[in-house]
Amino acid sequence: MNKKLLSAGLALALGAGYALTAFSQVKPEVLVKQRQSAMTLQGKYFGPLGGMLKGSIPYNAQVVARNAGYLEVLSRMPWDGFDPSTSGQKTRALPAVYTDTAKFKEAQDRFQTAVGQLVAASKGGDEAAVKAAIGDVGKTCGGCHDNFREKQ
Amino acid sequence: MNKKLLSAGLALALGAGYALTAFSQVKPEVLVKQRQSAMTLQGKYFGPLGGMLKGSIPYNAQVVARNAGYLEVLSRMPWDGFDPSTSGQKTRALPAVYTDTAKFKEAQDRFQTAVGQLVAASKGGDEAAVKAAIGDVGKTCGGCHDNFREKQ
Repeated sequence: MNKKLLSAGLALALGAGYALTAFSQVKPEVLVKQRQSAMTLQGKYFGPLGGMLKGSIPYNAQVVARNAGYLEVLSRMPWDGFDPSTSGQKTRALPAVYTDTAKFKEAQDRFQTAVGQLVAASKGGDEAAVKAAIGDVGKTCGGCHDNFREKQ
Repeated sequence: MNKKLLSAGLALALGAGYALTAFSQVKPEVLVKQRQSAMTLQGKYFGPLGGMLKGSIPYNAQVVARNAGYLEVLSRMPWDGFDPSTSGQKTRALPAVYTDTAKFKEAQDRFQTAVGQLVAASKGGDEAAVKAAIGDVGKTCGGCHDNFREKQ
């Protein structure tokens, strides 16, 4: 077995462990910046949908579908940034993020599920269903922000 | 025609113009934060691929495929943040961003094309082709960073 094959085989064998190793080398302040960036972009693409739900900006099915697709990807990005190594960083993340990890994971899953349902609804063309799905996503944002983030 | 239909029709009729209006209400400092967040996440997901190309971390086809998919979405996100309203903000974006807009757009397009080719290569399973595609993406990052961003 040549060295190149060995190296590829090793990476496959390690699987998630490999990813964790690569990830652990990232500095805590960089992890924080990356996870906050994902949240900022979630805000960029969810904000207008919230506006459409409230009626403060006109409903636009095309924008909803595009933003929902973006959110589906963005909703997977912040979580590996909540590494215990970041617990000493100056952020609004509460200690519960690192102690009540099961509940934190549940809140992430509910958010991702709601975003998936919004993506599905946005393909259907039923404005009322889309708006209900936008509202559901908003509630799941609160699932983390209410319990795992310091109030401002 | 009732008011609701009129409003939906109006939004459709305005098309890109509508999006621009919604977007123009965003404060310049928020636009900068959002576009920098997109760049930060491009770095998060391209960084390990660069490491694999250089051989500093082991090649992992699964990670490449996932990150390439993320980059395809992220590569669309920064550009509307380079609004002329942000030209007075303290950032490393050079004035050429707002004056040589055609060349800036070309550089964006080359980056997006290269990312699309990386996505395609990452589905093929040919490590050499994938690594060549990673290198090509890296070069197109330089297309903006060399010409449209202040040197550090």
